[in-house]
Amino acid sequence: MHALVERLFPLCRSITGDGVRQTLEIIGGSLPLTVHEVPSGTAVFDWTVPREWNIRDAYIADATGRRVVDFADSNLHVVSYSVPVSATMTLDELRPHLHTLPEQPDLVPYRTSYYQPDWGFCLSQRTLDSLADGEYRVEIDSTLADGHLTYAEHVVPGRLSDEILISCHVCHPSLANDNLAAIAVATQLAARLAEAERRYTYRFLFMPGTIGSITWLARNAEAVERVRHGLVLACAGDRGSLTYKRSRRGDAGIDRAARYVLESSGRPHRIVDFSPYGYDERQFCSPGFNLGVGCLTRTPYAGYPEYHTSADNPDFVAPEAMADTLETVWEILGVLERDRTYVNLSPFGEPQLGKRGLYEALGGRSDTKQAQLAMLWVLNLSDGEHSLLDVAERSGLPFAAVAGAAAALSDAGLLKE
Amino acid sequence: MHALVERLFPLCRSITGDGVRQTLEIIGGSLPLTVHEVPSGTAVFDWTVPREWNIRDAYIADATGRRVVDFADSNLHVVSYSVPVSATMTLDELRPHLHTLPEQPDLVPYRTSYYQPDWGFCLSQRTLDSLADGEYRVEIDSTLADGHLTYAEHVVPGRLSDEILISCHVCHPSLANDNLAAIAVATQLAARLAEAERRYTYRFLFMPGTIGSITWLARNAEAVERVRHGLVLACAGDRGSLTYKRSRRGDAGIDRAARYVLESSGRPHRIVDFSPYGYDERQFCSPGFNLGVGCLTRTPYAGYPEYHTSADNPDFVAPEAMADTLETVWEILGVLERDRTYVNLSPFGEPQLGKRGLYEALGGRSDTKQAQLAMLWVLNLSDGEHSLLDVAERSGLPFAAVAGAAAALSDAGLLKE
Amino acid sequence: MHALVERLFPLCRSITGDGVRQTLEIIGGSLPLTVHEVPSGTAVFDWTVPREWNIRDAYIADATGRRVVDFADSNLHVVSYSVPVSATMTLDELRPHLHTLPEQPDLVPYRTSYYQPDWGFCLSQRTLDSLADGEYRVEIDSTLADGHLTYAEHVVPGRLSDEILISCHVCHPSLANDNLAAIAVATQLAARLAEAERRYTYRFLFMPGTIGSITWLARNAEAVERVRHGLVLACAGDRGSLTYKRSRRGDAGIDRAARYVLESSGRPHRIVDFSPYGYDERQFCSPGFNLGVGCLTRTPYAGYPEYHTSADNPDFVAPEAMADTLETVWEILGVLERDRTYVNLSPFGEPQLGKRGLYEALGGRSDTKQAQLAMLWVLNLSDGEHSLLDVAERSGLPFAAVAGAAAALSDAGLLKE
Repeated sequence: MHALVERLFPLCRSITGDGVRQTLEIIGGSLPLTVHEVPSGTAVFDWTVPREWNIRDAYIADATGRRVVDFADSNLHVVSYSVPVSATMTLDELRPHLHTLPEQPDLVPYRTSYYQPDWGFCLSQRTLDSLADGEYRVEIDSTLADGHLTYAEHVVPGRLSDEILISCHVCHPSLANDNLAAIAVATQLAARLAEAERRYTYRFLFMPGTIGSITWLARNAEAVERVRHGLVLACAGDRGSLTYKRSRRGDAGIDRAARYVLESSGRPHRIVDFSPYGYDERQFCSPGFNLGVGCLTRTPYAGYPEYHTSADNPDFVAPEAMADTLETVWEILGVLERDRTYVNLSPFGEPQLGKRGLYEALGGRSDTKQAQLAMLWVLNLSDGEHSLLDVAERSGLPFAAVAGAAAALSDAGLLKE
Repeated sequence: MHALVERLFPLCRSITGDGVRQTLEIIGGSLPLTVHEVPSGTAVFDWTVPREWNIRDAYIADATGRRVVDFADSNLHVVSYSVPVSATMTLDELRPHLHTLPEQPDLVPYRTSYYQPDWGFCLSQRTLDSLADGEYRVEIDSTLADGHLTYAEHVVPGRLSDEILISCHVCHPSLANDNLAAIAVATQLAARLAEAERRYTYRFLFMPGTIGSITWLARNAEAVERVRHGLVLACAGDRGSLTYKRSRRGDAGIDRAARYVLESSGRPHRIVDFSPYGYDERQFCSPGFNLGVGCLTRTPYAGYPEYHTSADNPDFVAPEAMADTLETVWEILGVLERDRTYVNLSPFGEPQLGKRGLYEALGGRSDTKQAQLAMLWVLNLSDGEHSLLDVAERSGLPFAAVAGAAAALSDAGLLKE
Repeated sequence: MHALVERLFPLCRSITGDGVRQTLEIIGGSLPLTVHEVPSGTAVFDWTVPREWNIRDAYIADATGRRVVDFADSNLHVVSYSVPVSATMTLDELRPHLHTLPEQPDLVPYRTSYYQPDWGFCLSQRTLDSLADGEYRVEIDSTLADGHLTYAEHVVPGRLSDEILISCHVCHPSLANDNLAAIAVATQLAARLAEAERRYTYRFLFMPGTIGSITWLARNAEAVERVRHGLVLACAGDRGSLTYKRSRRGDAGIDRAARYVLESSGRPHRIVDFSPYGYDERQFCSPGFNLGVGCLTRTPYAGYPEYHTSADNPDFVAPEAMADTLETVWEILGVLERDRTYVNLSPFGEPQLGKRGLYEALGGRSDTKQAQLAMLWVLNLSDGEHSLLDVAERSGLPFAAVAGAAAALSDAGLLKE
């Protein structure tokens, strides 16, 4: 996964443009993607697909011609969606267009101006401080023109048409944790799911933030109807512990499965309530949709000093952190895959497990085994109103033991779905 | 407000009689009141309006003619509703009619006998101890005769016919905190409301306790229907911190607004559950009405040693405490006035706030402003099921910020009520 | 009660057989019992009544003829439901049939093999260690043949046909706390109930565990319909504190009454959630019945080292512990007997209690009496949706005070059921 992060890192992504296309092409190398191109000007709910932005070169050069800030060094140096500029101006005239982080003087910030025509450069405070007064040559060789918004889907079909969404944003330029790590985790997850037995159909979305998810939602009313659960993946690779942010519903299936996995696994973690700020869960959880979509990150949104700066580089992303994120998602999906609600077909008293070979023969011992307890719990709570996850939570038994007991009882004809 | 307390203090109020009329006349000096006179014998639900009680003089005089206990010194000296007496008796014969506070030997208690014909005197234990055996002249020059029960209303009309009740009892004689302080706060509040923009109609009730509120409820079935929220004010001026007692419903609008204001203001306070003992919330919250009426006091019912004694005098009441009570009520009403439930008219994904000038243009910064967050929260939760107070509580944002965001979004056509 | 425990202790009970019959005959000496005999082979839900087991003698004798393990010493020495054996075998051949408690080397364990034809002996680890290699004579003179399952009922009729079940298992051989103590408590309780005024009808069940309750449930569909509350009594005499295990419903009447009594009595206690492991509450709370049946024990299931061993003898059972269990059950039933839901017939404001002699005449005193508060609470909450137990819990007043107030108000015509 880390190799993919490194490979994608240099590309200049934005909410539209060739950087996104190149990113999707590279992901498509390991995962077959369906790429969608939506023309500028297309109405998507309250929004309009913007013009497409592309950039070839940009710099600030001093009187000697030396490039003191150069897009070629890092695509963070240019405010995303900057309109073209070609001008000579004094440092003072330039200043309103320069963005720094005075409290982190060595880092270059990340800035955008998608919907307000503007231009600007981002640079370290140290670089800014080193600039002498005088005239500077300012060039941004960009294009902002009718074109397309680009996003991609990958579907892993399952036995059911019910879908689980996995979504991650692909609009950030050279920022590794935000969001190349999540892209890498999602890519690996899709490959792993393809090998596994699946009940649900999985839909992976690689989209620019906000406008991308709004566009997808606007164009896919039928797929939206099929979404049962979903997870937005972001900031998936820093060394911090995991944070799960609940869906707006707060107790959706994904919320309960994520909480169960995080709590029962012993991983350090935080579970936070939904708030309408963050990643594309904002759109999936808008009141018109209110989908059961949560968001899994490691250190969440704006919670680390490297956030939205040049320090969010591939070194900031740890392979073992990405592996842990992937494993956690895998376990959450495992609960969703196996969770279901049964009805006990022999609900009057306990059925006689012994005659079916499901119960120890020698009574009176107090060291009853977990598997037997799990069967008694599943039988007792299978009244059509408790799912296996309910049983696991109420009994305190591991979900795997409960699911195993349900399978054995189902095989013995004692349960039906 | 303290001047009003001092002016009202000497009057001999009871549940009926001229003391109540004089009190209402003085209040009426600053507030136009509608005074109601309900004849003795009128049936009001399970009760009957009692005979009217008036008193001119009362004393116990010793053998030398010296008045050892004198109504002229304090109207607390006579048990309220004492029947007329004119007799000479020994101290031992008198004793069953004498009430003291042995554990607070310098204070005179407050006693009543409204519904059981009786007579008595209240005096300090020290006075009682100083009385020599022998004969005493006992005179109570009172009248208990058909007359009227007197109460007053003041209405501050609002845009809606929905009403908020503010009620306080006017039946206690020379007790300052209980309840002249609340009378003063209510009077000031009415004046302040008259100057403000109002959605609700406010109805102020100045009534004797229990029989007064029962009489009002029995005579005002239509007004009762219009009551949306209400607050009984009592013990509004002592130096203790505020106590809000919930309505019987426990989560009525007034309960939530009071809790929000008390908790978010940082004031020391207590919130206690409803109990059917206290002031007229007992009647408003009887099961046949079950109104959303809470009770705001400073130190509550019987919670201070001066309670129902001669020590509850104007010195016991602090002007700044009354001001704080008034301000708290004002803030609670402010929440009720501004709280309402909206529907997001653009519920599919977030609406584009930027094109309406409601969102900062330059993205990528992490210092998002409170106003923007408040807009996102209001949009996200405005599904017709969450009020602005819900939004404030769930988001942790100040109610004022949430209400401001709702106003801006409403102006932009994104919300409807 | 302890005398009954001692008298029943030596009998060799199992889930069927003469030990159960003798036990019921002795109980029947103090309590008229209806004894039911259900033939082997009878289908009861998913189960079949097993063959009847009886045993006359059993031993292991060494080469000298000395009985090294002898059923005559303790009926725990034979695995319950052992098939007949008459053989000579080496110690090594015998070992798979010998059960010990290596960590409690002086104690004899209790083992059964009801549904898997098998035989075995239980002995102390010390005895086992003392056995020399060589040949042993092994005799079990038992019968496993078609016969009957035996259980008994005792009904104490009440004014209502609604029933409260009291159930205890009678299938354990020489184990005193598990379950002779509960049998003794139930027997005493029945006698005490016969003397008391009763609203409910009480049905006492003395049955073998699991198969007994399943048999009763299968044969008594109509009685099951009448069950309103129930209590399984077990382990009722050890010196530990009480444990109440909730019904599957968790908030059934019995759950609330038991919690109220345990919490308000100040007894040390534990309240635990339902689990489908333990005693016959497993069957009563199976999803097809889901009855409001909890389980009261002292130290619960498997929670004491003497559990299911020869150390659970009459000395382990304390008369004062049994008395405390009995008293607790009595108090719980007292709450259920008196708890009901009233409607206030004068719900608009408070009714005038004074004119009915229910209220102190002299007002203004702060030392209001509990009885008056209880009346106000009952009147306030009697809207058809709160029971007296609700009133007691919400008011914090003793249930007895609340029930007394309800009785007085009812007599005064202010409440109806």
